[in-house]
Amino acid sequence: MAAAYHAPYLGVAYYPEDWDVSEIDSDIAKMKEAGINTARIGEFAWYKMEPEPGRYEFGWLHDVVDRLGAAGIAVVMGTPSATPPRWLSKLYPDIMQSDENGIRKQHGGRRHCCSNNPHYREYSARIARKLGEEFGRDEHIIGWQIDNEIYTDVGCFCPNCVGKFAEYLREKYGNIDNLNRAWNLNLFSQAYDSFADIPTPARAWVNPHHKMEWKIFHNSCHIDFVHMQADILRPLTDAPIGTDTMPFRRMDYRHMTEKLDIVQFNHYNTEANLWNAAMWMDHLRTLKDRPFWVTETATCWNGSVDINQDLKPEGFCRANSWMPLALGGEANMYWLWRTHWAGHELTHGSVLSSSGRPMHIFHEVQRLSREYALAADFLQNTKVKTAAALHYSALNYNIAGEQSVLNTLTYDKAVSSFYCPMICQGLRPDMIDARQPLDSYKLIVSPMMMTLEEDDLAERMAKWVQDGGVWVVGPMSDIRTEIGTKYTDRPYGMLEKLCGVRWKYDIPDRKHYLHAVWKDGTPFGECDWYELFEADEDALVTVTDGYSSAEGLAPVIMKNIGKGAVIIVGALMSEENRRRILTLACERAGIRLPEVSGDSILVCPRAGEGREGVILVEHAGRGGTYRCEKPMLDLLSGKEYSGVITLAPYDVLVLE
Amino acid sequence: MAAAYHAPYLGVAYYPEDWDVSEIDSDIAKMKEAGINTARIGEFAWYKMEPEPGRYEFGWLHDVVDRLGAAGIAVVMGTPSATPPRWLSKLYPDIMQSDENGIRKQHGGRRHCCSNNPHYREYSARIARKLGEEFGRDEHIIGWQIDNEIYTDVGCFCPNCVGKFAEYLREKYGNIDNLNRAWNLNLFSQAYDSFADIPTPARAWVNPHHKMEWKIFHNSCHIDFVHMQADILRPLTDAPIGTDTMPFRRMDYRHMTEKLDIVQFNHYNTEANLWNAAMWMDHLRTLKDRPFWVTETATCWNGSVDINQDLKPEGFCRANSWMPLALGGEANMYWLWRTHWAGHELTHGSVLSSSGRPMHIFHEVQRLSREYALAADFLQNTKVKTAAALHYSALNYNIAGEQSVLNTLTYDKAVSSFYCPMICQGLRPDMIDARQPLDSYKLIVSPMMMTLEEDDLAERMAKWVQDGGVWVVGPMSDIRTEIGTKYTDRPYGMLEKLCGVRWKYDIPDRKHYLHAVWKDGTPFGECDWYELFEADEDALVTVTDGYSSAEGLAPVIMKNIGKGAVIIVGALMSEENRRRILTLACERAGIRLPEVSGDSILVCPRAGEGREGVILVEHAGRGGTYRCEKPMLDLLSGKEYSGVITLAPYDVLVLE
Amino acid sequence: MAAAYHAPYLGVAYYPEDWDVSEIDSDIAKMKEAGINTARIGEFAWYKMEPEPGRYEFGWLHDVVDRLGAAGIAVVMGTPSATPPRWLSKLYPDIMQSDENGIRKQHGGRRHCCSNNPHYREYSARIARKLGEEFGRDEHIIGWQIDNEIYTDVGCFCPNCVGKFAEYLREKYGNIDNLNRAWNLNLFSQAYDSFADIPTPARAWVNPHHKMEWKIFHNSCHIDFVHMQADILRPLTDAPIGTDTMPFRRMDYRHMTEKLDIVQFNHYNTEANLWNAAMWMDHLRTLKDRPFWVTETATCWNGSVDINQDLKPEGFCRANSWMPLALGGEANMYWLWRTHWAGHELTHGSVLSSSGRPMHIFHEVQRLSREYALAADFLQNTKVKTAAALHYSALNYNIAGEQSVLNTLTYDKAVSSFYCPMICQGLRPDMIDARQPLDSYKLIVSPMMMTLEEDDLAERMAKWVQDGGVWVVGPMSDIRTEIGTKYTDRPYGMLEKLCGVRWKYDIPDRKHYLHAVWKDGTPFGECDWYELFEADEDALVTVTDGYSSAEGLAPVIMKNIGKGAVIIVGALMSEENRRRILTLACERAGIRLPEVSGDSILVCPRAGEGREGVILVEHAGRGGTYRCEKPMLDLLSGKEYSGVITLAPYDVLVLE
Repeated sequence: MAAAYHAPYLGVAYYPEDWDVSEIDSDIAKMKEAGINTARIGEFAWYKMEPEPGRYEFGWLHDVVDRLGAAGIAVVMGTPSATPPRWLSKLYPDIMQSDENGIRKQHGGRRHCCSNNPHYREYSARIARKLGEEFGRDEHIIGWQIDNEIYTDVGCFCPNCVGKFAEYLREKYGNIDNLNRAWNLNLFSQAYDSFADIPTPARAWVNPHHKMEWKIFHNSCHIDFVHMQADILRPLTDAPIGTDTMPFRRMDYRHMTEKLDIVQFNHYNTEANLWNAAMWMDHLRTLKDRPFWVTETATCWNGSVDINQDLKPEGFCRANSWMPLALGGEANMYWLWRTHWAGHELTHGSVLSSSGRPMHIFHEVQRLSREYALAADFLQNTKVKTAAALHYSALNYNIAGEQSVLNTLTYDKAVSSFYCPMICQGLRPDMIDARQPLDSYKLIVSPMMMTLEEDDLAERMAKWVQDGGVWVVGPMSDIRTEIGTKYTDRPYGMLEKLCGVRWKYDIPDRKHYLHAVWKDGTPFGECDWYELFEADEDALVTVTDGYSSAEGLAPVIMKNIGKGAVIIVGALMSEENRRRILTLACERAGIRLPEVSGDSILVCPRAGEGREGVILVEHAGRGGTYRCEKPMLDLLSGKEYSGVITLAPYDVLVLE
Repeated sequence: MAAAYHAPYLGVAYYPEDWDVSEIDSDIAKMKEAGINTARIGEFAWYKMEPEPGRYEFGWLHDVVDRLGAAGIAVVMGTPSATPPRWLSKLYPDIMQSDENGIRKQHGGRRHCCSNNPHYREYSARIARKLGEEFGRDEHIIGWQIDNEIYTDVGCFCPNCVGKFAEYLREKYGNIDNLNRAWNLNLFSQAYDSFADIPTPARAWVNPHHKMEWKIFHNSCHIDFVHMQADILRPLTDAPIGTDTMPFRRMDYRHMTEKLDIVQFNHYNTEANLWNAAMWMDHLRTLKDRPFWVTETATCWNGSVDINQDLKPEGFCRANSWMPLALGGEANMYWLWRTHWAGHELTHGSVLSSSGRPMHIFHEVQRLSREYALAADFLQNTKVKTAAALHYSALNYNIAGEQSVLNTLTYDKAVSSFYCPMICQGLRPDMIDARQPLDSYKLIVSPMMMTLEEDDLAERMAKWVQDGGVWVVGPMSDIRTEIGTKYTDRPYGMLEKLCGVRWKYDIPDRKHYLHAVWKDGTPFGECDWYELFEADEDALVTVTDGYSSAEGLAPVIMKNIGKGAVIIVGALMSEENRRRILTLACERAGIRLPEVSGDSILVCPRAGEGREGVILVEHAGRGGTYRCEKPMLDLLSGKEYSGVITLAPYDVLVLE
Repeated sequence: MAAAYHAPYLGVAYYPEDWDVSEIDSDIAKMKEAGINTARIGEFAWYKMEPEPGRYEFGWLHDVVDRLGAAGIAVVMGTPSATPPRWLSKLYPDIMQSDENGIRKQHGGRRHCCSNNPHYREYSARIARKLGEEFGRDEHIIGWQIDNEIYTDVGCFCPNCVGKFAEYLREKYGNIDNLNRAWNLNLFSQAYDSFADIPTPARAWVNPHHKMEWKIFHNSCHIDFVHMQADILRPLTDAPIGTDTMPFRRMDYRHMTEKLDIVQFNHYNTEANLWNAAMWMDHLRTLKDRPFWVTETATCWNGSVDINQDLKPEGFCRANSWMPLALGGEANMYWLWRTHWAGHELTHGSVLSSSGRPMHIFHEVQRLSREYALAADFLQNTKVKTAAALHYSALNYNIAGEQSVLNTLTYDKAVSSFYCPMICQGLRPDMIDARQPLDSYKLIVSPMMMTLEEDDLAERMAKWVQDGGVWVVGPMSDIRTEIGTKYTDRPYGMLEKLCGVRWKYDIPDRKHYLHAVWKDGTPFGECDWYELFEADEDALVTVTDGYSSAEGLAPVIMKNIGKGAVIIVGALMSEENRRRILTLACERAGIRLPEVSGDSILVCPRAGEGREGVILVEHAGRGGTYRCEKPMLDLLSGKEYSGVITLAPYDVLVLE
């Protein structure tokens, strides 16, 4: 990699295979005009790279890379395994995924092949190797992207997958009796005599553990497929290797990125849910000790089949493009540079229209290019700094996905119900998985961690609390084993014992029959779910009436334990109540909240050797205020601020 | 059966195969604490009973029955045919049901096998026989339940079913020309040359008679499957044999219970539709001269996949548990005793949580146990007593299901549109099928009996009216033959002739263009459907305007015939109008309505040799009043009542 | 054809195969009583015509035709290919259509066979020939209907269709490289090595050009199937040959009717959308120089499965039956004469009930019979006369169907958004396809003609404008090639060049961030879509604020070109704005609008040799007014009118 290229990267996805070669130079000239310094290419171009089995054509691609490089534009190269040519499915029809009825998908889209198919794997490996050999040492290549948005929806049901699933289960459970016992398969006479007897989870009222393992299995197959390519590319290049994911909540990002160098992430969030992209970025930066890349985001609207979004308000593109940099990334790349002229995704927003003319956001992109440069030094020398964390784990997502408690409560909803008030209050949490070390945090919120049987989390949390941590435990936490079964001798894995409390029962109450009050007499308000404990002096909230046997029981309790404390939140309650609990928890943990108003300002504290500051991003178009504790300089505008700053919709300030 | 066990039964479903043997004793001890006197077991435990083909293990089950018996808890034993082990589908893959495309279901849930499959029938017969031999004379077994909730959704489309369907049609229609003519198959050139040519009713715009026969056929196959098991058990036991059904409206309960001793019924109704469970119980008691059993109902909420219901209000469990006893049953059993700890239905409400702790309704269950005992003698010596009936027939449901008249009017809706005002007015109707004898009734309401060609009902109704009966005939009655075709020479089978009236035409009018008035000038209000007759002095309601040709025609007519009368209700009208007609009909029939208010008090008059009384159940949480005609004693509280009694939500009074 | 029969035809669909022969005479007698002069028969009676392969029975059908003829009722004879007998699918199971997974349909409904199947075609040809030989010269046959409502939904996926599709593509694209290039198949590595490699468009994220060609291909196969029958009938009869279509928007009516003599059309529109039937009739009359026939419409309600419509208001039947005659047709036939007594469509509205009694609309039918006679002479000697046209093309429908721009904007909606204000303002447009000659029009509106690459339309429109035409070009017009791809060097095919304007970009704005004003300062109001141009003095509307880069750009422009003018309407705007533009365009084109109020009066100017007049039909039940410019005589009532006439709901006036 040449020294010439450095972060921050302002990039675009470019599909030279989509355009006549005569257009390339003018496209590059317009990229320069826009201030673009990086192009992502190659991800779907297998057919142009290998038009016949074993006949490779990379000349055209070298030419594009060279032209981009000559213009000072760095290149991220994608391996094209998401789109195998038609000749491959003709040679080996069994590479296509099968649906629940065993019927195969057909050629024409993307990601329609089975990651477990040996022929597909063989040819994918071969093209990755060839591509690595061709471009691994190219000075313009600043990174690699393996495949594209690989994940599991329902999974492939081909015979090959069925066989590998049986192997996966055998490896996990040892013998079939263990599996029968673990899944409680005496129930409904479901028990199997051998792993080979286990059918696909389809065309039946399928056991939920069966369904959950199927999903976890398939995700690990995709991860294995990506790792296979990473192993091939590793010796061929020094540029960092990644795979561009999306918010694939079933996927264990830790596992996926284990063998990768860099986290790459695509999102298409809008003004309605930009906070949710922030949540993911709060997770992404915890995975690697290296800034992540946003590899895809939209300048305008989505239009994969037709335009299903609208004009985003002025300034949105800027806030959206600043967010990854504020939250620990170093790249923001748009999908796509120029809208396709035929075929799929013909109406997707872009930087340039199909006819090659600049879209309405062109001047915002140009401005970003200038601003990135102004803040580059500060960004490079500081990192996001926080003492609070929020738990999120793919295993818990998968348990909740197949065996949730309330039909109206998804895992996503449970997590964001705590994340949103945290960021509204100006807190900057790391969103951490079970494996993340705990030492650096004073406060951890675990919303609906149904199981703690992951990476010794139960034991580690107990110790961390003893050592002074403040743990907010959301509803439906610690109630399941690692495969989603219940404890038969106790309702919680460790919570009763750790806290010395006794659970009585749970009550879903979306009709709001029960009433409860805070310790100070404030009404607790409407609440959809109660986990009720025998109350003592540590009860924060107590049921007053609505069902005689529940009166006097407590859904919210705070217990001091060692140097720390646990706040058990056994209630699905109002946002106001969640803020009250978070405020209490911050106080107890000694975390000082910044003074913000408006509920839409991302406060991103940054610190490095000798430098310190904060990046503010207004993300919802409502505006708001932030109080500087000392006079600060906005690196973008050069203005000095002190006291209360008012941010306009989608404002971005880089304060040092 | 030992003398020790007697009704009323307060029971639970228990799955000892689901729990470690170490838990059994403490579970039984808690049952005793709750006041439970009956346990339903066995229904899904085939694999534990026969872990390999022909190797039976009943020791564990004897042990459970003995422990229950030792604690004074009676047992209802289920045959496990709903859940064949995996080894059976490995031996005979063709036992699995096929869907509309001929694709087979897979192992893992329940009721996935084809009732017509000879191998499945053979093994089901064998396990039933073995179970009968083992437990048929066990003193603790007070009853048998065959299979579980067997019914037809879309039916099985396997080749075996197709062949048996052809046989069924041949038996019913004699030869193919008869079928072609009966179904009018010249239309669309649908006619068949042989029964073997008839395809499954799938992948086509299928003839509605074809679809209807398919459903009736499949239900009769299930009935045959249950009867086969009953025939096996009969010589092996003296305890009554049944099968637990649900509100399976396509199923002919009369036919199903023909060879059974007892009616068993499951329902999961809530405070929103408890009236509907009452309607079914008003039907159940007419089927056998023996009190029915509610074999399943929920204490708390449903949760077969996740919790999709909520806390039911305090008292609901009591009202729900009293209802079957008030309406002619002698058992109420909860599903389930203790929530499973893994696998399916992990969040279902219960009496005990998975961790073995009592749920919030535990004290209500204990109270019921005491109350059942207080009223036992009265219940045993009295029966429900009524002079009114409401027609409901599976054949009519099936006709309406495939060939309804209005897309917005289901058969259920039509029936409950009369049932609800009846019970709100304090009437206690029997809900009777076509075969039920008519002599004991003064008033019969037939809401949407599309055909009367069932058990000579047309002739019997005519005679019953001549002899003094008052017949309220709802809209869309008597308009079809027994297979759902129309009469070509007249609009009604017998109604015009019986009443001497002349129909002009029908008009669907959900936009309410037409207007009509009662004879006394009261406006008739909005009405979705009119059957219009040439009016004479017997018109109760007349169209005044809205469409010139309809003016002066009558949708509601009352005709005196012999000693009785017919009220033709050719209108889908407001509930207020239906109440007006019912009041009129009761007056004409000499039925005196009790004085009730609140629209939610079930009035259940009971009479026996020398004893008489009434059970009141408030079923909707609204409260209400009832006026005693003479002073009465509440057997539950020991309080005396006279005059107007005020019932709180979910109150139950057993007044003698 | 006997001279005895002449238009206008008031007809019914009659199914003698559905009724016992004893009913025929009384049915015919009642037809006479109703004033019916035409019966459509035969369309589904293949089995009765050919009960075994090669054994024909036409005696019963001759008998019916003769009896109808004897009563003075003309006959339209249908070929029965829509409903092949069961014996044919037994002989050749492959005649059944296959679904997306290759699973075959089954016998029992209609149109379930594959129009490309050689056996089905062979037997269809044979029965058409036999029928033609039997009835081709029958004096009572006034017309032929081939098949019934033939069109493409998703298409048949059988191997035969796949093969013919490959041939179709080869013929259109010449070689596979052309197709790969035209569809841009380098994208996603979709490219094919041969036509034989192209799979069905199923079980994949299918390329939109692939999907579009599949639909066009299938429609042309159906057309070919109809033409095959027309070629067979042609030498056997002098009566006009047609096929009864519906609003099949994917179908190229021009292509379909090429080899046919007469346009036949079925519609089941109600008071909510009778305007839409008018729109289709405004199209139908442009296809042939011969009045079209409405072959099916409902007197009452639809009820193919159950009654899903309601009583239509009094007078609706009359307005509905007059509409085709007013708009250039000469026949109106009801579906159906007498409701079936069994099987499918048992609840459909009719003239006679199944039991043979007249429905409530009987007197309206009788009145129509009288009125048709009164106006017959005027109708025969005049034609609809108009100077305005609206573009509609099946090709554009198909492009929009697979690759629309906005997900909320269908082609239908785009077209009717201009059609509705046109007819509300009293304009009578021809709805023309691309091939229609332009000379006779002063004003043409092209709403969303995505491509103009059809029948040299681009060139012809340019010339027509130069010669004085006024062209209103709706949004999203001229933006695609004939196969739905974009231009890469320009946004529009010809519009920028013709008008000398420059497009900047498009903006979807359903959240209404942008604001714009008319030239006179009137606010432009809310607008969902903008195509924005660099503004000059010809801008009619200019963006004022909402997004800084869009300010000053123009979405609506009027350019004088040669003797004519182009109004570019690059905005999806309010109906009020569309009316403003239409008024402006009429002024510019020298079209004088009549004075109407109420938005629901169809104004149908008629002119012939020496005769002139206007037919007014109130179509929405709202009433309204029309101003006569001179005194006129209503041929129906015999009343004279002058000045402002007030029309009651569903009034019809034939003014001369």
